[in-house]
Amino acid sequence: MTTGVRRRMGVEERRQQLIGVALDLFSHRSPDEVSIDEIASAAGISRPLVYHYFPGKLSLYEAALKRAAQDLAARFEEPQEGPLGARLLRVMDRFFDFVDEHGPGFSALMRGGPAVGSSATNALIDSVRQAAYVQILAHLGVRAASPRLDLVVRSWISLAESTALIWLDGRRIPRAELEVQLVHDFAALAAVSAAYDEEMARLLRRILVDEPADGPFSDLIARLAALAPA
Amino acid sequence: MTTGVRRRMGVEERRQQLIGVALDLFSHRSPDEVSIDEIASAAGISRPLVYHYFPGKLSLYEAALKRAAQDLAARFEEPQEGPLGARLLRVMDRFFDFVDEHGPGFSALMRGGPAVGSSATNALIDSVRQAAYVQILAHLGVRAASPRLDLVVRSWISLAESTALIWLDGRRIPRAELEVQLVHDFAALAAVSAAYDEEMARLLRRILVDEPADGPFSDLIARLAALAPA
Repeated sequence: MTTGVRRRMGVEERRQQLIGVALDLFSHRSPDEVSIDEIASAAGISRPLVYHYFPGKLSLYEAALKRAAQDLAARFEEPQEGPLGARLLRVMDRFFDFVDEHGPGFSALMRGGPAVGSSATNALIDSVRQAAYVQILAHLGVRAASPRLDLVVRSWISLAESTALIWLDGRRIPRAELEVQLVHDFAALAAVSAAYDEEMARLLRRILVDEPADGPFSDLIARLAALAPA
Repeated sequence: MTTGVRRRMGVEERRQQLIGVALDLFSHRSPDEVSIDEIASAAGISRPLVYHYFPGKLSLYEAALKRAAQDLAARFEEPQEGPLGARLLRVMDRFFDFVDEHGPGFSALMRGGPAVGSSATNALIDSVRQAAYVQILAHLGVRAASPRLDLVVRSWISLAESTALIWLDGRRIPRAELEVQLVHDFAALAAVSAAYDEEMARLLRRILVDEPADGPFSDLIARLAALAPA
């Protein structure tokens, strides 16, 4: 049976199948809880055959992670049309889909640790952050970010990561609420920066002009105004 | 000479001296760039004698990290007196002092990687985050945080970490500005959460009542109001 399956699949096809099987297993549990035996069994092949394609669990883990990273980076792509708040909200929805699909693996990876922390995995995480960063600057219509805009964008990306991790730990707040909240957090962090920096203020005014009266940004401003002491 | 020094110091005293020397070296460069030989030389003792006190570089690194973690956690302690914004600003000042003193080591640690990521180091990082969390809740006068307050506090702690890491990477924004900004970020994240949650709104109103007209929170609100479209 094993040999039969082996004959039917080409080398690259088999590698891709193994990566898919491994990604599924690594997504649902912490990587150190997943064994090569389990991956072999889920792929319907023998343990030695897994080693024929990947020298060890780490290389299979890194290949699975690479596929996940490409998948996530692709979800950041969003047409540059319509108000910015609505665009960001759609991206957040796809981001939380990803986090939901890969929950335990995402937590294990982002919280680091001996089983997952390596130069290769860190480089992959950074490549996804960089993809998010480049997308956001493109949507803001900015080619080279000033130090303050750079800080707002990078620190917001980090905030999105930590919000997702906190959500996964018990799912005590509905994710739809967190998706809207992260859009607002972006506006809030940009506004804090804009309060002290004229360049950020110009950028924020340009964004707000395009926001519809019933969009997430305007909604936030109305709610904040209601909150302010009389 | 080596034997002479050895005689003058007791075991615990020598251990503490080695930890201090190691912390200094690990603070100024990435841990994988620091050798046991260098630590021995800086401590004025032989390499075998270092191994007499610590089985290897990792155990010495973990001991140094533990001391740094205790030092940082102690800096979060702040008398529960006066307006909250001013208290948080003083803590941010001490936090950036720490980050400044341990820059390269702090970056290497927080960015993870094979040389620094272990269960023990992750547990130490989490213990410092937990100390910050407990302090903030105490200052807010809250015993058990709701899921939304929990999210605001934890995600703000993560924001403070990432802001410090971005600052260390080039120091392109004056740290005093970032300290104020983080206080404002806290208010902004709390305000976003309060815009949709009555319990958070009550908490925020209670905080704002105590803020002086010339404090950081009031300053921010005035600047944001000036920014809003007419």
